[in-house]
Amino acid sequence: MISVEEARARILEVLRPTPAEVVALAEAWNRVTAAPVVARLTQPPVDVSAMDGYALRAADGAAGAVLAVIGAAPAGHPFDGVVGPGQAVRLFTGSAVPAGADAILLQEDAARDGDSVRVNESVTLGRHIRRAGQDFAAGDAVIPAGRRITARDAGLAAAANHPWLPVHRRPRVAILATGDEIAMPGEPIPPGGIVSSNSHALASLVRAAGGAPMILPNARDDAAAIAAVADAVAGMDLLVTTGGASVGDHDLVIAALQSRGLTLNFWQIAMRPGKPLLFGQLGTTPVLGLPGNPVSALVCAILFLLPALMRLSGLPAAALPTTAAVLGSAVRANDRRADYLRASIACDAAGRLVATPFPVQDSAMLRRLANADALVLRPPHAPALEEGAEVSVIRLDSLGL
Amino acid sequence: MISVEEARARILEVLRPTPAEVVALAEAWNRVTAAPVVARLTQPPVDVSAMDGYALRAADGAAGAVLAVIGAAPAGHPFDGVVGPGQAVRLFTGSAVPAGADAILLQEDAARDGDSVRVNESVTLGRHIRRAGQDFAAGDAVIPAGRRITARDAGLAAAANHPWLPVHRRPRVAILATGDEIAMPGEPIPPGGIVSSNSHALASLVRAAGGAPMILPNARDDAAAIAAVADAVAGMDLLVTTGGASVGDHDLVIAALQSRGLTLNFWQIAMRPGKPLLFGQLGTTPVLGLPGNPVSALVCAILFLLPALMRLSGLPAAALPTTAAVLGSAVRANDRRADYLRASIACDAAGRLVATPFPVQDSAMLRRLANADALVLRPPHAPALEEGAEVSVIRLDSLGL
Repeated sequence: MISVEEARARILEVLRPTPAEVVALAEAWNRVTAAPVVARLTQPPVDVSAMDGYALRAADGAAGAVLAVIGAAPAGHPFDGVVGPGQAVRLFTGSAVPAGADAILLQEDAARDGDSVRVNESVTLGRHIRRAGQDFAAGDAVIPAGRRITARDAGLAAAANHPWLPVHRRPRVAILATGDEIAMPGEPIPPGGIVSSNSHALASLVRAAGGAPMILPNARDDAAAIAAVADAVAGMDLLVTTGGASVGDHDLVIAALQSRGLTLNFWQIAMRPGKPLLFGQLGTTPVLGLPGNPVSALVCAILFLLPALMRLSGLPAAALPTTAAVLGSAVRANDRRADYLRASIACDAAGRLVATPFPVQDSAMLRRLANADALVLRPPHAPALEEGAEVSVIRLDSLGL
Repeated sequence: MISVEEARARILEVLRPTPAEVVALAEAWNRVTAAPVVARLTQPPVDVSAMDGYALRAADGAAGAVLAVIGAAPAGHPFDGVVGPGQAVRLFTGSAVPAGADAILLQEDAARDGDSVRVNESVTLGRHIRRAGQDFAAGDAVIPAGRRITARDAGLAAAANHPWLPVHRRPRVAILATGDEIAMPGEPIPPGGIVSSNSHALASLVRAAGGAPMILPNARDDAAAIAAVADAVAGMDLLVTTGGASVGDHDLVIAALQSRGLTLNFWQIAMRPGKPLLFGQLGTTPVLGLPGNPVSALVCAILFLLPALMRLSGLPAAALPTTAAVLGSAVRANDRRADYLRASIACDAAGRLVATPFPVQDSAMLRRLANADALVLRPPHAPALEEGAEVSVIRLDSLGL
């Protein structure tokens, strides 16, 4: 058995970011940049007014002065002439400051009377003028490569005049559930069987991470049925299987895929839930084999599949960030397997996060997992802890997981 | 001018959740349930083994006993007979516990020899048996209405045998940018003009909140062009405009839309950036008018459009949650307008969040906004604060905003 950290490192070592494709800016939200976004223009392109008012020479702008209004420059309609002594030009937020002018008289500090305007409040040289390039200059890398595009980034890329962006192709992830006992929702359930939940949970998790899931038909516990998947995964960036990887009699996945050329990297992790984890390579497609228990499968997916998807997406790949919390109830000493306790989260009067592990941690209780706010990390051989002790948690409540 | 809180309350008072549609479970991730998800079966359906091993009578399971193995029950292939005294049945994780048996002998505690098995470690009555209904029972509402479906929920809905889910239709949001000075990315830029960024930023924000954005062609500062949008928004759940709502000479949106029946709810908010906010109703379509400055537009969208999208989506609608942080630099006393300072976030040695407002807070600096991690909340008339003082922040760094 290897540690969780070593397993994650071995997975990330093998995976490579997907190649780039070009998408319209309107489709770029939440995609990962495959190259820096370099500004194609300077913003603002010229000195512009930050306010509605009048452009004038600062020397003319003492309170009480009366100036001749020689024109107007609505945004998008620059004033062509030059502002001379004793003159002013009407302008608006975003209007180009005309030649000759070096100060802005705010609208609320001005009294307009026909073709003239009176200065009620003295102006300051340069005040309320946004200088050319104050936001960015042509050639600036305004967004780095390897960044997930936010709404703000999309606006910035637009302002930098990019109708298209090169982004990493969505990781294509094939998902295969195995087992004689499982049926897809709404289909006939075999005697003593259950409805399969792993494929839909994992496909949703792949979506949450920005990937493109493909749910394969369930495979029965039959070597030929499982081996057939090798033909289905050509061109996929990852194959995720569930079930059939443990030490029981019905563990066919490894043998079946080995018959089709699977090379095995590892398949046992010192963790709970989820010891039987498989990682290998089937042709050019990496294979991640998760346990069949739905809770184990999802916890392992959070620990291993999410970082894998980050790497494939072109993001810096890492474990999910942990947060400090205090225990809402005591926990026992841990054995040699890292444990991930499903827990609720609350905030105490002092504003601290309180994580309370559910009393029953059965890896078949999917409803409990769905209601969990966090996983409490229990490293191998961690000592027993009292209520109030500090622990690290992985928060699940805002990730779409 | 009205307060931010009153404006938000007035918006949320008007909006209603969209009606339900039915989507395949594979498409349900991140959608909002329009009805509780009620389990259609009991899970597990019968008592099942939690481990690989043997089913037997607890009375027969003392260390040293040797039992006759009368059959096997792989998952999905229940054993039909009854386990009698001195008998055992081989089973696996998830196998139905056969009639007559009330204990599980773990595989690692058993020594198999042909048709018999020796008990090496005494069994405990009921241990390692998952009782029927331990996860959920048919008729249980396993997911409430009004919840955004997580990956874990998708698995739970599958396990509860739902191939389809009723969810609220994605809110349809039309987005209109106005102004003579703006061009779409890649299109010819008018003299003195800029590339329009608001439409793409807001469309991305709508996507981030699970809505369906529709970017309308930019409208020039022309009453007829703006009024024409009234025909385009029939059937939309919300129209968002940017620009043209302030007090300058080129503020045509209100007048133009009033000519098409706009009823105005309010249009001035005591906040910065973003005073000129408009809310009203155009036929059956609510209208939210945001400022034209890209930073103002996005900050207002975070404060007002996101809660509006939550309400339309069927979620409990609320302001984005705030987090406590300490200031990384002093801030001045605030005036009567609520202020939202763009800030970076770091963690100090004591593990506290430190929010440092950018020294320049110009509402035209989109690059700065894109690099901000948080907005520092400054209520109206808030006093000056020193470095280290506690403030509330809205975190932006993990919302896709």
